[in-house]
Order: sequence, then structure tokens, then C-alpha cells
Amino acid sequence: MKKIVALFLVLTSGYAIAQDDDDLKTYISHTINELQEFVAIPNDALDHADINRNLTWLTKKFNERGFNSSILPTTGESLFFAALPMEDNKPTILFYMHLDGQSVDPTKWDQPNPYHVVLKSKDGDQWKTQPFDSLTNNLNYDWRLFGRSTSDDKGPIVMLLNTIDLLKKNNVSLPFNVKVILDSEEEKSSKPLPQAVKEYRDLFKADFLVINDGPVHVSGKPTVVYGCRGITTLTLTTYGPLKPQHSGHYGNYAPNPGFQLAQLLASMKDANGKVLINGYYDGITLDPTTMEILKNVPDDATTINNNLSIKTPEQVGSFYQESLQYPSLNIRGLSSGWVGEKARTIIPESATAEIDMRLVPESDGTKLKGLVKKHIENQGFYIMDKLPSKEDRMAHDKIITITEGSVTNAFRTDLNNAYGNFLVDVLKESFAEDVVQIRIMGGTVPIGPFISELKIPAFIVPMVNADNNQHSPNENLKIGQIAYGIKAFYGILSTPMD
Amino acid sequence: MKKIVALFLVLTSGYAIAQDDDDLKTYISHTINELQEFVAIPNDALDHADINRNLTWLTKKFNERGFNSSILPTTGESLFFAALPMEDNKPTILFYMHLDGQSVDPTKWDQPNPYHVVLKSKDGDQWKTQPFDSLTNNLNYDWRLFGRSTSDDKGPIVMLLNTIDLLKKNNVSLPFNVKVILDSEEEKSSKPLPQAVKEYRDLFKADFLVINDGPVHVSGKPTVVYGCRGITTLTLTTYGPLKPQHSGHYGNYAPNPGFQLAQLLASMKDANGKVLINGYYDGITLDPTTMEILKNVPDDATTINNNLSIKTPEQVGSFYQESLQYPSLNIRGLSSGWVGEKARTIIPESATAEIDMRLVPESDGTKLKGLVKKHIENQGFYIMDKLPSKEDRMAHDKIITITEGSVTNAFRTDLNNAYGNFLVDVLKESFAEDVVQIRIMGGTVPIGPFISELKIPAFIVPMVNADNNQHSPNENLKIGQIAYGIKAFYGILSTPMD
Repeated sequence: MKKIVALFLVLTSGYAIAQDDDDLKTYISHTINELQEFVAIPNDALDHADINRNLTWLTKKFNERGFNSSILPTTGESLFFAALPMEDNKPTILFYMHLDGQSVDPTKWDQPNPYHVVLKSKDGDQWKTQPFDSLTNNLNYDWRLFGRSTSDDKGPIVMLLNTIDLLKKNNVSLPFNVKVILDSEEEKSSKPLPQAVKEYRDLFKADFLVINDGPVHVSGKPTVVYGCRGITTLTLTTYGPLKPQHSGHYGNYAPNPGFQLAQLLASMKDANGKVLINGYYDGITLDPTTMEILKNVPDDATTINNNLSIKTPEQVGSFYQESLQYPSLNIRGLSSGWVGEKARTIIPESATAEIDMRLVPESDGTKLKGLVKKHIENQGFYIMDKLPSKEDRMAHDKIITITEGSVTNAFRTDLNNAYGNFLVDVLKESFAEDVVQIRIMGGTVPIGPFISELKIPAFIVPMVNADNNQHSPNENLKIGQIAYGIKAFYGILSTPMD
Repeated sequence: MKKIVALFLVLTSGYAIAQDDDDLKTYISHTINELQEFVAIPNDALDHADINRNLTWLTKKFNERGFNSSILPTTGESLFFAALPMEDNKPTILFYMHLDGQSVDPTKWDQPNPYHVVLKSKDGDQWKTQPFDSLTNNLNYDWRLFGRSTSDDKGPIVMLLNTIDLLKKNNVSLPFNVKVILDSEEEKSSKPLPQAVKEYRDLFKADFLVINDGPVHVSGKPTVVYGCRGITTLTLTTYGPLKPQHSGHYGNYAPNPGFQLAQLLASMKDANGKVLINGYYDGITLDPTTMEILKNVPDDATTINNNLSIKTPEQVGSFYQESLQYPSLNIRGLSSGWVGEKARTIIPESATAEIDMRLVPESDGTKLKGLVKKHIENQGFYIMDKLPSKEDRMAHDKIITITEGSVTNAFRTDLNNAYGNFLVDVLKESFAEDVVQIRIMGGTVPIGPFISELKIPAFIVPMVNADNNQHSPNENLKIGQIAYGIKAFYGILSTPMD
């Protein structure tokens, strides 16, 4: 225990590593080495053989730490599951991370191979490659490891493994049973998950779920996220003449599908970005306590707007966190005829809008899609779920084909949940800093099935830096965030709940 | 003269060729042979060598008929000019046709080579290839010649050449001086024409212009067109965040360029297709006499709507011909983000609409573009003519980049013009049928420079069938239309004006 207290003393000193804590140093170094090894196994979510090689590596690494592990077959890629030996009297924590990564285009990276980790320091605006042995005497927290999945999401997995080692070295008796589920299709929307969670629900049984994915708040402060928005999509297609027609011969005569689509889309939102569809925001109330929590997030509107290069944001909420409490309605794509050099003087045959809707717990995806369809019908459209035939076209003036995407619903754990309070307290104590509490984040983590099936509270405890270039070329992980991750995992797994 | 009268007697019998008129038969056959030869020289408007080979062929063919011809250099491809020896006491007719053709994609044609004319008969719904020698005993007017530019616009050129032969054979003394200008960039919008007409204005001097391009009215009746709409274009681009942003992180916060564009476009037209921009239709009045002329065109709305597969047309005019008397506003292309399989959950960086506007004489292109820009400004947009910088984006909420296309203005010759009356009378007499008089056609023929520079009345006298697949695969010319063309040219060039 003494050792642990000593570690905490070191940790509370913040991001600078104390000279006298060789243990943390050692396990950061171990993490760096092991992460290089792990990243070197490509993990393209689209490549079955890649995924299997990662599963093999993980089995070895978890088993070495005393976990019992299983490869769980699903309708898609297999899941990786591991658990430390269980004791009946302890609460169980289930960690969710993922082993798959986004595809890479090596030509867009500033290094030869995105799967060969490169160490870099920043010199002014330039990143400069450094030899790994220069870390021996100077474990610089601002230097970064560049490579696919260093942050998303292999880094946190390796941080957890090394924290287990450190806890063992310090003979810490864990106050929790520990289960770990590693998704292998997170970057492909985790389609096999709902059925797999049903099938393996006894195996996954736990008291709470901790998701270690995504970045900490941009301020760099310790962060607990209580929920995330869901998502669903709609594809809307309107129709003009059966084939593209000469805009001279039929301009002013054949209806233009682009104008029909523009008029429909324009009817859905006001100039400030508020959705005008009946009932779209129903059931959402933000009481003063909630507003206080949202306002406490240290966002800087000037920085956000500068990064986006916008003068004024949409006005669904009066500030960033408030805007995330509402479902969104986004035109993610538009297409009709041709633009640019290929533009031709035609009245196009059709016009298509791709819509995505980010969901909140009050707005179930199926319900929202229903409201949108009702709205479209009220605008005088005849709704079809397939391409209209010539007969359909001649029977109706305004036809629209609506194709519905699948629904991933939102989740949001109560801000007063005991496990949430525990996580916040641990992080606060570990880092001697206020914890950023995010009621709901904008993006979507596909862990809905765990929550709906296991009926347990879920929290996202991110470990990596906000500027990690997730999903993009030059993905990276700050070495300081490895220290952060080990400290955070150590705190969670060594602190008994009251 | 006797011979000519005999020919007229034959002509007035309509589309069936009289057994006793071997002359017409002979010259139709000559036309078919010569057209095969001409079409065999590819004429892709984008290929300089193609165009030159056509100019060489034309020089030979016109000179054989006693024309003096010249290749006239321009800022682009050279023009072909030819004139029969001039007599001072005769009025001069200037024929305009074009020698260039649209590019071909041979894989989309139902014949091996679009430049090798194929003869086909229709068997039910199927086209069946026929040997050319089967024409010797049966010059079937419903059979067709398939090949690039058979109709657009090499067919009419060869019809004119063979009419000259027939007139000569019959010793007809022409009551007109005849000039011919053949454009070599019509399919590329005749960009060199304005300057060339200025430069060669003395050479082109004439009393009236007859354009033999485009098809006769869909009814197949003799047709005179008094004008055509002009065209100009606008490209409109609206902006969201500087780079595409994650629709989860920033949905409800970063403005969406697709909604901005949709709202703008929706403000431009009502649900019936009428333009709502102030002043767009100013100056256009259709008096009862004009309305009568428009109504006399034997259009069949049911057929048109069936061909387009639409239930109700736009309501700018109450019928097809009326709608063409007004300028149009057409969205010919839309693009933002990605659609279909490539769709991604992003807020796009920008959204673009390609607009074309067909012009009428009352609506000068520059004036109309000004009205549209004024309207856009009134919708609260900050208008730029280039990509906005980061500073521009942070200084203005709604930015739009407007790129203006060049203007080809409309022309419309008075319906009471003496040369127009002459053409109508000749056609009426030649075919013993009412002539379809079209006040203005929807499409654009780029002969504006002739009219503005030479200040002469212009008429389109089309020669080919309406269903000729102009610009598309399987372009074709009905053999009956060769008879039509020779009769029409013969009538025009053999009838003295009163």
C-alpha cells in the first residue's frame, strides 16, 4: 500500500514525471515497446487475416497477465474477451476497447509505414523524427508516437495491460473483478455486436461498463463522458423527367428535381439551424442543474469557431455543449446531374440528399425517422421505398424515394450514478484536477447493445490526446497520455468504492 | 422551267415518292452516297486534324458545284465559307450549317463504327440492318441512315449540295445569290464566331440568314423557327466549416453548406416552377396575336408529358410553347460531400449548384445574372468571386462564391418579316401543308454574332427528323427527310420573291 500512496503522490504532481518514480517511467517504456509491437500487426477492419493476427497477439498478452481469454465467434469478425479470476464478493468492471483500425493510405502519411511506429518531437511547426533510444534519458511527455491505432484504440489496451503489471508488482489487491471485451469491428459500426451481446450476456455480466475510446477533453483535463449520441441515416431522392433532358428544350416545362429537393430541405431547418420538423426536439428539457454541468465544461468558443473557421455557429443550443443535447439533422451529401467541368446543360433525372441524424436518448431513431417522413408527406410528396416506375411518375407530381439506414441509439448514464461518482473521484484524486464531466458527446460509440442487454451504467473514460488525428493520416499518441492512462487505470483498479 | 413545274407536282404529293420522278430518286441516292463519304471523315469537335480533313473534303465538293470557297482562320478552328458567283441585282441568302460533331463512344452505339453509316429498317420495336443495294428498287422513306452527324449537321449540307446539282440539271436560274458558312465549333459553343463575324463581315454580307440545324417539329410538318433562346450559366458555392467535420462532434454547431444552398435555391422558385427573383420576367408580354401563333403549333401535351414521364409540367406558361417565351432557371448540377456508397458522416466543407438560364430577347444575360446576384445578396449572402480565405470565413456568416459563365443572347426575328413570309410560303407550296411557325425555340444556336453584326433577319429552317438522337448514340436521318430537304432547298432556291 505504501508504494501505491507514493505513486499517488507522484501522480498528483501532474504531467511532469517525478525523478524518484522509476516504476512509472519503467511501465511507460514497457508500454511504448509493447505498443510498437502491437501496431506492427496491421488491423484494417476490412481484412479478416489482419484481425486474426491481432487476436492471436492479444491472447498471448492477456494470458501472460493472468487473464483467461476467449475468442468469441460472431456473425462477423470474432470478439476478444478476457477476465481475471473472479471473486464473488467484488463488483465487476467491464472494459470495452477495440482492436481494429481505419484503413491507411501510406502515401498520405509523413512516415514510410503507418504500422511502424515513429517517435517525433515538435520543432516549431515541424515534426522531427527521434531515435527511440533518446527516450532512455529523457522520457519527454510532449513527444509523440505516430502510427495507425496508437490512439484509436490500441494505445489504451496496452496501457491497461501495463497497469495490470504495475498493480501486480505493487501487490495491489484489486477491489474489482475485471472483464475486458475488445471489439474487432468498431470501425465498421460493430454490426455483429447486438446479437453477440445477447449470445454472451452471461459472460459479459458486470456492474458497470467503462469504455476507453476517443480523446480526453481538448483542455487535456481528466474526462468522464456519460453518454454519446446515436445515429441513423436517410437517403432522399426526388425526380424530374425520366431521362436527363436538354435544358433548352424543356427548361420551364420539365420539373427540376434539384428545386424540389432544395424546397424540401429548406423546409426542414430555419436559417439558424433549428429543425422545423414537428416534434423533433420533443421531450428534451435542460433543468438549471443540467445547464450548470454543461456550462462547467471548459470549452472555448473562440478556439472552436477558429478551428472550424466559422463566424457564428448554428443556434440549436446557445453554446457547444448545449447543442449536443439535441438531435441533429445534417446534409452529408448532395448530388444531381454534374458539376464543374462535367456540367452539362440538362435538366437532371433525379437529385439525392444524404442525411444523417445524431440521436439523443429522448429521440429514438425510429421515432425521428417517422417524424421526418411525416414532414415530407406534409410537403406534398408521394413517398416510395424504391425507384418509381414510369406509371408512378405519371401518377404523382412530387415523388420521393426514402431509403432508411439502421439505427444506433444514443445512451446517457445518469450524472448521479454511484459508479460515475466513483470514476470522477478517482480521476480527481489521481490528477488533483477538476474532472471534465460531459453529459453526452456528439459522436457515436456503438456500445448500445451492452447497455440495453446488460442494463448496466456505462461511462467513457478516454485516455488519449484530443489532437490525435484519429481516422486520419499521422494518427499519434502523446507520451504524456501514456502516463495519464496508466495513472487513470491504476487509480480505478486500486481504489475501493466507498 | 417545265421540268421544275413537274418536280413541284411531285413534291406536293407529300412523302410518297412518285414513280415517274426519277430525278428526285436519283438525287436522294446521290445524297446517301455522298453523306456516307462525308460521315466517314470523323468530325469530333475536339480534334483539330478531324476538322481539317472535313474542310478539305468540303472545299472539293463545293468547288465541284461552282462555288468559290475559302478556309477562314479564326482564333479557334477555321470556318468554311463558299459562295456562288454573285450578281448585283439579286438578294443574297446566307446559309449557316456546321461540320463538326459531338464526340462518340462507340461502345454505346448499335453499330461497330459511328462513322460508318449503317442503313436500318424498323421491325416492330427493333432496328434491322439492311444492305444499301436494297435501296435500288425500294427507296423506303421510313428507313434510316445511322451515323454521327447524319442529322446534326452533315446531312443538311449534303442535301444542299445535291439540290444545287438538281437545280443545275434543270437549268434553273437562281433568284438569289447564295453564300454558305459552315461552323467548325458549333458543338463547342462557337467561341471564335463573334470575332470572326466582325473580321469577315463584308464577306458574309447578306439579306437574310437561313440556319439549317436541328429537327423539324415533332409532327413532321414543314417548320420555320423565328428565334432561339440564349444561355448563360452561374456556379454557386456555399461554405460550412473549413474542412469536412465529423457530423457527431459538430452536428448542430458547424453550419451546413447544403442547407444554406437549399434555402437559397428554394427562395428562387415557387412550387410551380415560377421564378421569384424580382424583375426576372420583366418586359415580356404576349398579346392575343402572339398567343394565337403559339397555340397554332401542333404540340400534343399528352405525348410530351408521356415522353418526359411527368404528371404536371412547370407552370411558367400554360402550355409548352408559352413556357419557351420566358427565361428559365435550371439547376443542372448539385454536389456536396458524398452520396451513395461513399457517403460519410461529415458536415461538408462546401456545396455547389450549377445553374443554367435560357434567355429570351427581353432578358439579356448580363441583366438576368445581375438580378440573380441582387436576389442572393438580399438573402443575406456575402458574394465573392473566388474561394473565401479563413479570414473571409470568420468575418461573414453566409458566404457564396459566384462564378459567371459567358452569355449567348437570344434572337427572335419578327413574325411579319418579308423573308420569313417568303420561306413559309415556299414550304407551304412545296409540301401542300400548313407550316409550323415557332416564335422561339427552347435551345440555343450560337448565331447571335451574325444577327448583331450583320443586322439581318434570321430563320431556322430545319431539315431532319425530330427523333434523330442528336448528340447521343445511334444518331440517324430518315430517308424521307432527305426528300424533304432537297424539296425545301429546291423551293427556296428556285422561287423568286414577289
